[in-house]
Amino acid sequence: MIAQHTTLTHRTHGNDHMIDLTGDLQEAVAATGIRTGQVAAMVTGSTAALTTIEFEPGLVTHDLAAALERIAPRDGHYEHEATWHDDNGHSHVRASLVGPSLALPVFEGKIPFGTWQHAVLVDFDTRPRDRTVHVSIVGV
Amino acid sequence: MIAQHTTLTHRTHGNDHMIDLTGDLQEAVAATGIRTGQVAAMVTGSTAALTTIEFEPGLVTHDLAAALERIAPRDGHYEHEATWHDDNGHSHVRASLVGPSLALPVFEGKIPFGTWQHAVLVDFDTRPRDRTVHVSIVGV
Amino acid sequence: MIAQHTTLTHRTHGNDHMIDLTGDLQEAVAATGIRTGQVAAMVTGSTAALTTIEFEPGLVTHDLAAALERIAPRDGHYEHEATWHDDNGHSHVRASLVGPSLALPVFEGKIPFGTWQHAVLVDFDTRPRDRTVHVSIVGV
Repeated sequence: MIAQHTTLTHRTHGNDHMIDLTGDLQEAVAATGIRTGQVAAMVTGSTAALTTIEFEPGLVTHDLAAALERIAPRDGHYEHEATWHDDNGHSHVRASLVGPSLALPVFEGKIPFGTWQHAVLVDFDTRPRDRTVHVSIVGV
Repeated sequence: MIAQHTTLTHRTHGNDHMIDLTGDLQEAVAATGIRTGQVAAMVTGSTAALTTIEFEPGLVTHDLAAALERIAPRDGHYEHEATWHDDNGHSHVRASLVGPSLALPVFEGKIPFGTWQHAVLVDFDTRPRDRTVHVSIVGV
Repeated sequence: MIAQHTTLTHRTHGNDHMIDLTGDLQEAVAATGIRTGQVAAMVTGSTAALTTIEFEPGLVTHDLAAALERIAPRDGHYEHEATWHDDNGHSHVRASLVGPSLALPVFEGKIPFGTWQHAVLVDFDTRPRDRTVHVSIVGV
């Protein structure tokens, strides 16, 4: 039984910028030699999230951002902004809704994503950020 | 310490069809003999999701679909559909919002769900699909 | 390789009440002595959820509840309520959307949350509840 940890770092543009983590995650799993087990991935910070999506820049990625604009509009009223004179109230709400973490199985040495299914980091903040995704892998 | 993997497969109707996975998951855990540990469950594909819910067909299951219809309406505009002449833009958005995976503790040989809490697969695609849920279990 | 389980219990007020679990989770990890591994945390019940957020009572916590009020309004129509003459249809929908579980990496003996990022239990039910969060930790 092995437990290993790795860190993925990415510079984002913010504003719903989505970064494909699939290759990084598969490489991290391969590097452990684990054939059966699981991955816990979590982005650090409260204005970014992890999910999976068909990774089509400008298409589904845009559609997800448009849906979140209906739920937590950029120009809406946020107590967070009213208090801190900040502009990222919607970023916090979007991040908490989508969620910070993924629990991914490892099967035959890989994460068994679908053909078009990609693990992504979404940065909802209103400016470029350096983001860290922590990845722990356990298994045999 | 044991790490085991199993695959659950289900034929769905699509269109927010929800399938109760609770029994399958508890059986998968029991089959490993693990008393303390954790389960990583992930559905393959980018138009389906996993969550937990009080599994009442036609009641809460309908209410969840109705809320998602407000966020990502079936007849809304999607760049994904405009480009691919497809009809499942809302399916992609709903799946990414609800999320593909669950991290479930194993306690005394079982996943400690609440009395009415069921783990479910929700298929948001617009047609019947054969779905695969990968389940990895580690523990002692 | 170690696998341990612990249970966190909290009395909530319901109605979107949010409880910070960060300290409890870090203590649970420290108590195992695990340096590298992962945590699976799940709330029991179908009207509560787990996520991470900048924990500002009355600010971001209010903003998240306000967004969920747009998706699943308290006074909306729910089949669950129409059938059971209950008042918590929105609670079920909110809980399923936010999700019951978190998959958290353990790195250098801690969960590497961001400075302002807190793990929280959100109780969406319409009355005070005693909530249980199951926490399983595996690693070395």
